[in-house]
Amino acid sequence: MDLYSGIINQLIEEFAALPGIGQKSAQRLAFHIVNMPREQVERFASVMCEARSKVCYCKECQTLTDRDICPICANTRRDHGVIMVVETTRDQAAYEKTGKYEGVYHVLHGAISPMLGIGPNDIRLKELIQRLEGDVKEVIIATNSTLEGETTAMYISKLVKPTGIKCTRIASGVPVGGDLEYIDEVTLLRALDGRTQL
Amino acid sequence: MDLYSGIINQLIEEFAALPGIGQKSAQRLAFHIVNMPREQVERFASVMCEARSKVCYCKECQTLTDRDICPICANTRRDHGVIMVVETTRDQAAYEKTGKYEGVYHVLHGAISPMLGIGPNDIRLKELIQRLEGDVKEVIIATNSTLEGETTAMYISKLVKPTGIKCTRIASGVPVGGDLEYIDEVTLLRALDGRTQL
Repeated sequence: MDLYSGIINQLIEEFAALPGIGQKSAQRLAFHIVNMPREQVERFASVMCEARSKVCYCKECQTLTDRDICPICANTRRDHGVIMVVETTRDQAAYEKTGKYEGVYHVLHGAISPMLGIGPNDIRLKELIQRLEGDVKEVIIATNSTLEGETTAMYISKLVKPTGIKCTRIASGVPVGGDLEYIDEVTLLRALDGRTQL
Repeated sequence: MDLYSGIINQLIEEFAALPGIGQKSAQRLAFHIVNMPREQVERFASVMCEARSKVCYCKECQTLTDRDICPICANTRRDHGVIMVVETTRDQAAYEKTGKYEGVYHVLHGAISPMLGIGPNDIRLKELIQRLEGDVKEVIIATNSTLEGETTAMYISKLVKPTGIKCTRIASGVPVGGDLEYIDEVTLLRALDGRTQL
């Protein structure tokens, strides 16, 4: 049963196809669009198309950007000898937000997952190996602390070690402000294993 | 600090301006768009613009539709003598989904709200009054059970009564499947007042 007119239903479908948007939210968004000033809708639509057509991968670090070389890789004041490997551009942004990391990044666009059939050739690993031929002092592996992230970290460390380049993994443990009582056992054991001298 | 490249930031802003979409969701949606096949993005954008430009108000019931007269008002098998007054097209869809209502609708596009400065002239009341000059047997007021909805219902009933047309209000009470223990006192008292003989 079509409750709304054709074009509204189409718009609801388009919204509902986006991640994390259910049928009710899609309805609300579609009606919001229909009630927005026309020029705003047209601007939104054109920004969407422009973003899709302009955004490409940085030739250095593979992050999503609208330039050949992203601003971070183009920044000569950053330490190009330290490469932090992350899964996504959003993970990179999370570290950038700290404002304290001075090296550069490498974005894999995924993680190795035998379950989902994603192998080493399906993520941007080749490009990382190529970068290691340059003047690199350290590779910091900052993939997620999930099964896939850990598998990927292990795989990369095995690739990096023979080159003699220092290879590190970000610490895993109790989050700052976390209450031990509510933290899962795996994390607690990980924090114990990773204990440092005071 | 701009964490992403210009056009991605713009797209994030556009998404974040939609109702119920926070900064994190907007980021996720923007990256989803950037990774979608180009033709899908273009289709989404054009559906959006088309919906905005084509959708208008039904000349009869004021609902949002892409025709002069919406399919419900154009349906001669429905009872045009019974008009259900609702606040929005989505409320109308909610009643349509029941599949049991055979009359037609009138969509106000809002409710009277002195708090927000929305008066009787800011919603589609004039159009309702005009319809009452036709052959109408009953006006069912199905505005929301909120302060604004109740105010609007009261206002409409005062307008309808002098015409001699039957004016009813949908029942307010305990929702089906609702557990009395968890229902607020106002609803409980409303259910008591509205009790019917068995």
